[in-house]
Amino acid sequence: MSLFRQTRPVAAVPIRRPRVVVIGAGFGGLAATRALDGADVDITLVDRRNHHVFQPLLYQVATAALSPADIAGPVRAIVCRQRNVQVILDAVCGIDRTARVVKLESGRDLPYDWLVLATGARHSYFGRDDWAVHAPGIKSIEDATAVRRKILLALERAETETDKVRRSALLTFVVIGGGPTGVELAGAIAELAHRSVSRDFRSITPHCSRVVLVHRGKRLLEPFPEALSASALRDLTKLGVEVRLDTAVTGVGCDHVMLGDETIAAHTAVWAAGVMASPAAKWLGHESDRSGRVAVDENFHPSGDARIFVIGDTASCNGANGRPLPGIAPVAKQQGAHVARAILAAETGAPPPSFRYRHYGNLATIGRSHAVIDFGRWQVEGLAAWLIWSMIHVFFLVGFRNRFSVGWGLLWNYLTYARHARLITGEIEPVPVNAAEPVVPPPAQLVPA
Amino acid sequence: MSLFRQTRPVAAVPIRRPRVVVIGAGFGGLAATRALDGADVDITLVDRRNHHVFQPLLYQVATAALSPADIAGPVRAIVCRQRNVQVILDAVCGIDRTARVVKLESGRDLPYDWLVLATGARHSYFGRDDWAVHAPGIKSIEDATAVRRKILLALERAETETDKVRRSALLTFVVIGGGPTGVELAGAIAELAHRSVSRDFRSITPHCSRVVLVHRGKRLLEPFPEALSASALRDLTKLGVEVRLDTAVTGVGCDHVMLGDETIAAHTAVWAAGVMASPAAKWLGHESDRSGRVAVDENFHPSGDARIFVIGDTASCNGANGRPLPGIAPVAKQQGAHVARAILAAETGAPPPSFRYRHYGNLATIGRSHAVIDFGRWQVEGLAAWLIWSMIHVFFLVGFRNRFSVGWGLLWNYLTYARHARLITGEIEPVPVNAAEPVVPPPAQLVPA
Repeated sequence: MSLFRQTRPVAAVPIRRPRVVVIGAGFGGLAATRALDGADVDITLVDRRNHHVFQPLLYQVATAALSPADIAGPVRAIVCRQRNVQVILDAVCGIDRTARVVKLESGRDLPYDWLVLATGARHSYFGRDDWAVHAPGIKSIEDATAVRRKILLALERAETETDKVRRSALLTFVVIGGGPTGVELAGAIAELAHRSVSRDFRSITPHCSRVVLVHRGKRLLEPFPEALSASALRDLTKLGVEVRLDTAVTGVGCDHVMLGDETIAAHTAVWAAGVMASPAAKWLGHESDRSGRVAVDENFHPSGDARIFVIGDTASCNGANGRPLPGIAPVAKQQGAHVARAILAAETGAPPPSFRYRHYGNLATIGRSHAVIDFGRWQVEGLAAWLIWSMIHVFFLVGFRNRFSVGWGLLWNYLTYARHARLITGEIEPVPVNAAEPVVPPPAQLVPA
Repeated sequence: MSLFRQTRPVAAVPIRRPRVVVIGAGFGGLAATRALDGADVDITLVDRRNHHVFQPLLYQVATAALSPADIAGPVRAIVCRQRNVQVILDAVCGIDRTARVVKLESGRDLPYDWLVLATGARHSYFGRDDWAVHAPGIKSIEDATAVRRKILLALERAETETDKVRRSALLTFVVIGGGPTGVELAGAIAELAHRSVSRDFRSITPHCSRVVLVHRGKRLLEPFPEALSASALRDLTKLGVEVRLDTAVTGVGCDHVMLGDETIAAHTAVWAAGVMASPAAKWLGHESDRSGRVAVDENFHPSGDARIFVIGDTASCNGANGRPLPGIAPVAKQQGAHVARAILAAETGAPPPSFRYRHYGNLATIGRSHAVIDFGRWQVEGLAAWLIWSMIHVFFLVGFRNRFSVGWGLLWNYLTYARHARLITGEIEPVPVNAAEPVVPPPAQLVPA
């Protein structure tokens, strides 16, 4: 007989925890994931890219003021302390709502109990996708570095171009769309082309470049009060930006932009005019609105499926005031946090929480010392607004290291007009000149004969 | 009659200043350009890229510790205060020595009175150029971000790979070449794979990864004293790197590296084994040595042409001790400064200066707290050497902003093991799995039945 009483081992039977699949590591997806920190669920966070991007500052990468790593961080590093999350680098190609499975491009199937779709939006060229190659937009790090490359290469080529017409086309920059992104981009390009680079080039002077901002609407920044739109227009004009309101773009080519009968010779055009939601509606077999967004109810469910949430730029829903919620980061973040609460409530049998969007304000910066901010009851403009804008953006960036780096970068650029991130990466194809004309030498010294 | 005595205007006739063309904005070309600051010459500085790269730190970009903009700066910005320089973004395709003209790829002709060729070197695969695609090297920002992408993607794919053999191949990293670059790269990859990422991944633990450093020679870091080679070997082994000395690579494929009869299954191989000079010899119609370098005399002229200088990694010449000068930054910088003095002497009719290379030492870092430094008379190793290494590298970086940023980046990485620049850029093709197997879920909670 054994000294110890023998007991039968207690069988360890795994109880499956609810599986939450979050697609997209943008503001919405990350907010949902983080709000489930410590919860008794297993989260799988899927994104096509390995990094989260702070989209509101992408225009600063496109204009060489910040480096990609300043405004983007690896998704894994952001959620590394949250033990209930697994991060997967993959893309969605379909959703089987009956089997509750997400189909990934790698061929894997990802079963879910709760699915959060936060896959954002891309540019929309209003049916003219052939314009995309000539007028890229900025929605990702790759977009922003491609635009940066385009702008910087145009300046490089203008430096050695001796033909006046070609040179002026190289130094003309057209921004299409007068919303916050377009306004910020136009201001930043004007500063880059007019001021920052003038001391580095020998033949380009601040007066050589032309920046045109084309907007279809009657005023810039339509979501803002009229006074702030006027302020933005004033500030942009001071920076040397030609603002063309009430003007539609009718054609875009590799060296021109057409506005009705008028053709602007320009080698660089950037698109900031329209967005099209990610194909979440297609994956769900669901109808979408004109911008490709999925209509959702007040709990962000697409009709008839309480297991699925669609949030952020991919969802179309109305706020408490009956007006559609705007496609901005605070909306996505608040929706993400709400969805997490709703999942926890459903799992514990609590009544579902109700969502109310809290609007903090709209803001846009114009160049290096002006901004406009609409807090609803009060408005701020000029330098004070720029300082508030800087603080808000630095504060919201993910991770202390980036916060420090961006804070430093903005301050340094402010003090010196420097553009430290002015790198052209990728292979550069030299543009052949039509004649073997000698390069303009630096001005010869004039001495009396 | 006029009240004023009429004088004939003094005709302003331009006197052409000597034209100095510098090809390549690396260490040598920039040193030559800067040493001509204020001189009565017109300098044209030509580079294929718009930025100067601090090559000794490229391995830090490849291992996601630093961002490209931390170690590279626009050439224009570096020389912007030097009024006698024009910077041109273009590539050389030939040189007409009789007409004294450099032919550029854009079709332009660039006449010169003095020509400085400082076009550096690329990798050499010893006749096996088919290996290049599987084992990229790191000589440019593009190279480094491509290697970074390769390493990070392998980790991402290993995280979801369920097949043990494929997973282990994804987590095996082979560095080919045991010189300073290979040693530094192997140490940095080991830290990235073993430590930095371990908290971010759920299925990769520090013990999963394997880093192999293959070297053909009998000891690492052959230019260093034997004691330091032994120290480097010890430090690398401590970091978990498998060092294979006296071993030649006989084959490289997309998922393996062959060492004689042995095949190492590895998805990531990086080349740090050999260099091949830029085609300056071809442009000059000149013979070159095995590494493609142009033999030059003690004043860095290729035979019979006193108007042309070849310096840096493209030139082959002996030092005062009769041994060939090594292909390192200090050599290129001292040669560049010497060439500038030689041009000024020739223009003023002074006797040509004589060159004597001053060797300050060799240094290599191993991971985040070890380095080896050979100052000739005395040697330093361990943490002290690492601190000296950090200071030297931060100090020599071009521009205060970068100096600050790199200093901060290195310190931050040291304190936190963080890899803030861990971005995978470019489109990512998902790797199809052979079966529609479910992704490994996070470990289920075990509760007694």
